[in-house]
Amino acid sequence: MSSAETTVAESNTTDEVVAELRRRSSFVFVSHVKPDGDTLGAGLALGLALKQLGKRVAYFQQDPVPRNLRFLPDSEDVTRDVAADLPADTLWVFCDMSDFTRAGEYLPAIPREHMLDIDHHLGNSHFGAFNYVLPTEASTGTCVLRLLHALGVTITPEIATCILTTIMTDTGAFMHTNTTPAVLRMSAEMIELGADKPLITDQIFANKRFAATKLLGMALERAVLDDDGRFCWTYVDEAMLREANADGEDTEEIVQHLRAVDGVECAALFKDYEGAVRVSLRSRGRINVQAAAAMLGGGGHFMASGLTYPERDLRKAVDGVHAALRAQGL
Amino acid sequence: MSSAETTVAESNTTDEVVAELRRRSSFVFVSHVKPDGDTLGAGLALGLALKQLGKRVAYFQQDPVPRNLRFLPDSEDVTRDVAADLPADTLWVFCDMSDFTRAGEYLPAIPREHMLDIDHHLGNSHFGAFNYVLPTEASTGTCVLRLLHALGVTITPEIATCILTTIMTDTGAFMHTNTTPAVLRMSAEMIELGADKPLITDQIFANKRFAATKLLGMALERAVLDDDGRFCWTYVDEAMLREANADGEDTEEIVQHLRAVDGVECAALFKDYEGAVRVSLRSRGRINVQAAAAMLGGGGHFMASGLTYPERDLRKAVDGVHAALRAQGL
Repeated sequence: MSSAETTVAESNTTDEVVAELRRRSSFVFVSHVKPDGDTLGAGLALGLALKQLGKRVAYFQQDPVPRNLRFLPDSEDVTRDVAADLPADTLWVFCDMSDFTRAGEYLPAIPREHMLDIDHHLGNSHFGAFNYVLPTEASTGTCVLRLLHALGVTITPEIATCILTTIMTDTGAFMHTNTTPAVLRMSAEMIELGADKPLITDQIFANKRFAATKLLGMALERAVLDDDGRFCWTYVDEAMLREANADGEDTEEIVQHLRAVDGVECAALFKDYEGAVRVSLRSRGRINVQAAAAMLGGGGHFMASGLTYPERDLRKAVDGVHAALRAQGL
Repeated sequence: MSSAETTVAESNTTDEVVAELRRRSSFVFVSHVKPDGDTLGAGLALGLALKQLGKRVAYFQQDPVPRNLRFLPDSEDVTRDVAADLPADTLWVFCDMSDFTRAGEYLPAIPREHMLDIDHHLGNSHFGAFNYVLPTEASTGTCVLRLLHALGVTITPEIATCILTTIMTDTGAFMHTNTTPAVLRMSAEMIELGADKPLITDQIFANKRFAATKLLGMALERAVLDDDGRFCWTYVDEAMLREANADGEDTEEIVQHLRAVDGVECAALFKDYEGAVRVSLRSRGRINVQAAAAMLGGGGHFMASGLTYPERDLRKAVDGVHAALRAQGL
């Protein structure tokens, strides 16, 4: 898989990683900033398992645990503080991040030989002395599940809940195309082992802030359908945030609703607050929204991209994005 | 399971139903009015399978196939017309309905001995000469899957797509609590056999009318949070329907969004159009909304119920429903 030219280390084998986990006495699990159910659930699952083996386990995360993930077992122990008395052989386990810098600026300096990198992203930089990077896995949690099976630990209901949370997070609750037969079978296994699927569903997918619901309403009421129904867009501005008592975190779902409109080929949300007009773009598969965003200095993927418009002028931003999308065949 | 006192026939065994399917030469599959992915997908799956055995197959449905189900194989053959030359041994197979009257008034009179009733509802009236009613199944389609396995037919990608559609419809895309390990494993099997899950997801769950999206926005913008955040409600009236260019069918999703607000224990949508104020109630598990609806002449289940308010007065309806919910412990 690797070549002589590249300095990127190959991924370690499951056996190599398991041997390192057995060798160490102490672990700190690290999740990325703006944590989601995968980065946090993966670390908690492996932490809970290593406690069974008598290991010392801590969890580092720069940001507080989001309210909708506080149901996760052990999440009350997640902190940005690092104990002063960590053993010298402590292994820092980074979950679900392409590079350790995604852990944020509060992360202390850690020698590479004490870093294990567990991830499922193609672009992972293999930054650890140990790297367990499986790009065909649906979540970092399912990478961890492989390790749990190899370690031979008991998958308790708590661990199963953490793993199922990673799966449901990264498959959009089984909606995304990474929901393979293997993923469905692993989910079945986790439920049989005691994963509390109704709790996960309720906490992660049915637990919206009222402010976000109001803001969604205001944004959808203002939605516009252009280009013979192929382009659906709307905006959120400071007045709307104020009226809904909402903040920038409450806008996440809006563009998905626009993309779901029958016949739409791409969708855009214009966010006119915090000093700039930022744009989220989504495609249904025909229009390359990464290329459209790149024309205006942005980036992302074919299906999802974003940009900050050069000028803070909503009308100009709408026109500019519209032109870029048409250049991509809208 | 049955008793001497009851006239309700026991469900037939799989072998008995399979024998009857082999015995007959001709079939008409019947779906219920306001068809969904389960009633239609179940009939199409069994119809496609019986064609493999050289049987004559037709599909009866009073309503047109909804736009978002037209991707289903053979759905173009679904009609409310009945051929004049049906063989005398034609078996009418009713899918996903408690009683044959759910097929609508266009259904011709059919002798009971030519009726097969396939369903997964507890309250099924066993109206056929043959009844295959399995209340533990997640969808009528998974009842059909049992028959397909017993018939030994090839589960083609088309059949697998129909079965997976029934599962995803009746589990709310794997969100409801009927998403058992067995259901997830069946879904895995269907994908391996060629079910087009991305197509199903896109057609059924990401294919909203623009009018429904606008109306959702208008309703959510008007949402009210009462009783210290335990009760969330909103309304839709004729002016809103007009402004959104929407109709009564476009209100379905609204109450789910209200129910999903953090801390909410029950949610209500007041529909003030078509000559009355109708109310949809949803619970998160503590408040019995069936009992609340019953106090005002309505009905339903513990978690979901509905009623028509005695007076066409939105303000009075809100107050009346509020009082009924408080009587149930809100």
